[in-house]
Amino acid sequence: MHDPHPPQPAAAGTAPLPATVLPAAEHAALRRALELAARGPADTPNPQVGCVLLAPDGTTLGEGHHRGAGTPHAEADALADAAARGHDPRGGTAVVTLEPCRHTGRTGPCARALREAGVARVVFALPDPGAAEGGGGAELAAAGIDVAGGPAAVGEELAESALDLIGPWYARAARPAVHVILKTATTLDGRVAAADGTSRWITGPAAREHAHRVRAGVDAIVVGTGTVRADDPALTARPAGAVAGPQPLRVAVGRRPVPATARIRGSDGRFLQATTHDPALVIAHLAARGVRRAVLEGGPRLGTAFLRAGAVDELHAYLAPVHLGAGAAAVGDLGVTTIDGALRWRTVHVDPLGEDVLLVARPA
Amino acid sequence: MHDPHPPQPAAAGTAPLPATVLPAAEHAALRRALELAARGPADTPNPQVGCVLLAPDGTTLGEGHHRGAGTPHAEADALADAAARGHDPRGGTAVVTLEPCRHTGRTGPCARALREAGVARVVFALPDPGAAEGGGGAELAAAGIDVAGGPAAVGEELAESALDLIGPWYARAARPAVHVILKTATTLDGRVAAADGTSRWITGPAAREHAHRVRAGVDAIVVGTGTVRADDPALTARPAGAVAGPQPLRVAVGRRPVPATARIRGSDGRFLQATTHDPALVIAHLAARGVRRAVLEGGPRLGTAFLRAGAVDELHAYLAPVHLGAGAAAVGDLGVTTIDGALRWRTVHVDPLGEDVLLVARPA
Ligand SMILES: NC(=O)c1ccc[n+]([C@@H]2O[C@H](COP(=O)([O-])OP(=O)(O)OC[C@H]3O[C@@H](n4cnc5c(N)ncnc54)[C@H](OP(=O)(O)O)[C@@H]3O)[C@@H](O)[C@H]2O)c1
Ligand SMILES: NC(=O)c1ccc[n+]([C@@H]2O[C@H](COP(=O)([O-])OP(=O)(O)OC[C@H]3O[C@@H](n4cnc5c(N)ncnc54)[C@H](OP(=O)(O)O)[C@@H]3O)[C@@H](O)[C@H]2O)c1
Repeated sequence: MHDPHPPQPAAAGTAPLPATVLPAAEHAALRRALELAARGPADTPNPQVGCVLLAPDGTTLGEGHHRGAGTPHAEADALADAAARGHDPRGGTAVVTLEPCRHTGRTGPCARALREAGVARVVFALPDPGAAEGGGGAELAAAGIDVAGGPAAVGEELAESALDLIGPWYARAARPAVHVILKTATTLDGRVAAADGTSRWITGPAAREHAHRVRAGVDAIVVGTGTVRADDPALTARPAGAVAGPQPLRVAVGRRPVPATARIRGSDGRFLQATTHDPALVIAHLAARGVRRAVLEGGPRLGTAFLRAGAVDELHAYLAPVHLGAGAAAVGDLGVTTIDGALRWRTVHVDPLGEDVLLVARPA
Repeated sequence: MHDPHPPQPAAAGTAPLPATVLPAAEHAALRRALELAARGPADTPNPQVGCVLLAPDGTTLGEGHHRGAGTPHAEADALADAAARGHDPRGGTAVVTLEPCRHTGRTGPCARALREAGVARVVFALPDPGAAEGGGGAELAAAGIDVAGGPAAVGEELAESALDLIGPWYARAARPAVHVILKTATTLDGRVAAADGTSRWITGPAAREHAHRVRAGVDAIVVGTGTVRADDPALTARPAGAVAGPQPLRVAVGRRPVPATARIRGSDGRFLQATTHDPALVIAHLAARGVRRAVLEGGPRLGTAFLRAGAVDELHAYLAPVHLGAGAAAVGDLGVTTIDGALRWRTVHVDPLGEDVLLVARPA
């Protein structure tokens, strides 16, 4: 049996999420940076970004924001502002709404600009969503600069505010960086649950064990609130020993509240509810937390939304030799009415797993 | 790739069905035997059977029928009647509604009684449904007696009349003798057709080729009238060269007329419509024609009826890496409401077939 997903270390961004420890001055500066960012033009190919430069004593040295394609990035704008005010940023802190870029575009990479300006610390709300190999933050850290970035560092609230501002842009940029696996466990007649909603268990032990190994190789496990309410899953990769490092982030998608006693909440703080129905925004939420690989474990409504959005990179279809004849179908309306419009996948491999079979496929 | 069903010669009873060539006297005698049979008690563990013994010139030597458990079989009854009338059956013909039995029960095997009585020819309407290795007819033929049995020999009409008389008994006895394979070709979400009814093609060439090899190894291919009307399938095993001997019998199940131009009718006479909704009677119809292995190729309503009746011995589930999100489900209501009541199969093997996968299973 070939295992496509041996356990692998979780991505850096998914370490346990501590309560925010951002100093008050930086917290205030980040709020201010968000205000500045909002001044930039929306609906351009570039995101709205704001930056505040702080002196070691917490006073403001300069402020900046991005004003549209072809104009300086927020960091360069803030450095120019500091210079214009006669302030030296050396030893200070750059507080930015989005991770400084590493690439060399029309304006030069911001990470290098901050490094050359001599700042001692960089704080940002959202990681660069497209930076699979590590963005400007990693470059700055490698240069010995103190870097604190992402929701874990700045707190969920400020990260959410940053995402609210640039959600669609962030979602587009994040899409290629997050590998989404859709897992389904169905009967041969395509049911994921019986008529009364019971679904434990459709597949056998070998398939469930395999699914746990897949969980151990991802950064996040995502379900809809319907599955949370129907099955109250723990969504942990078991046995715990199979997981190198922290457990994957557990994500509930939907607007209904997740009960305080729901097992998905766990006790390690590695739980997130994304109160949206937009798969792109779910992916943005994942990217904001450094998630590179996520497994979507249903249910049908959430899976269908991702399929319709073309937001599934890999399909894990566990099929059990079972008929139910009734009950929720694995996939709901895709807008397909005739066979030529069917959503077709390319089979990567087929694994017999005890009585069941796993079919792994990619978009055709 | 392991092929569970290499082509094999079709069973003897499925040779092309010629127009009946029964001599008029035998035809009349069989009608009479059916009348006699109806005099016996219904609703007993034994079938109603009638027998007429004819002299070589076509005159009647004796008549008999079965009067219930523990009493002589129809053949013995007719031989006794002939003896009582002072007639010698030597060189004559025994005309029976059901193939003479071969087993030694309380009354001794009828095949041996007929042989010892010296009859030169035996005609029967329905083959012994439980005789996997050949019933009394084979024994008589081996002894050099001329044997003409089954619908092909006596004509569809008389065979149908015989089946009408003992349908439930015949169905029960036939069940173990007919191996029923249910074939489904579905998407990963368990659909067998798109919302508009189109279903060509869900699976790819390798799966369809495999299904043709399975067809070449069975005696009959069975579909519901719904599939006939929706898809107008030819139901032949292709390429023809893969079939040793005649093509499998093509069977449409249901009461709606099969159009005169339907491809299922073919031109070789090997077509049958079973105007019933009872899977047991379908099996009886198959057994009456000597069918030992049949593949049920849908659609969902027919397949569901067989599943509900517990009348499926082997499942061939072809699964394509496709989602439709809507359209007919592979299996309809099975009366299952909760997961513990699911119809579970035992997987025999799993074959990747191009992009698709075949799961072969047996009742658990
Ligand atoms: N066999 C399997 O693989 C498997 C896996 C999981 C679940 N299940 C079964 O699936 C059933 C639950 O089905 P379900 O469809 O209700 O579960 P679901 O997809 O987990 O949850 C549905 C909820 O997801 C939220 N949601 C997020 N994006 C959405 C969108 N684009 N459109 C609609 N809703 C969206 C909505 O939450 P709000 O209403 O809160 O906004 C919606 O009510 C249970 O019986 C469970 O046992 C089976
Ligand atoms: N993907 C696949 O493997 C596959 C295979 C075959 C068909 N299909 C698709 O399935 C669809 C046809 O579905 P269907 O369910 O109508 O086809 P079906 O099962 O072939 O035909 C239904 C008919 O079967 C007869 N029947 C026999 N026994 C029955 C019973 N116990 N209960 C009810 N009906 C019984 C009835 O005929 P009367 O009304 O005449 O009495 C009924 O109308 C088409 O879209 C076809 O393309 C897909």
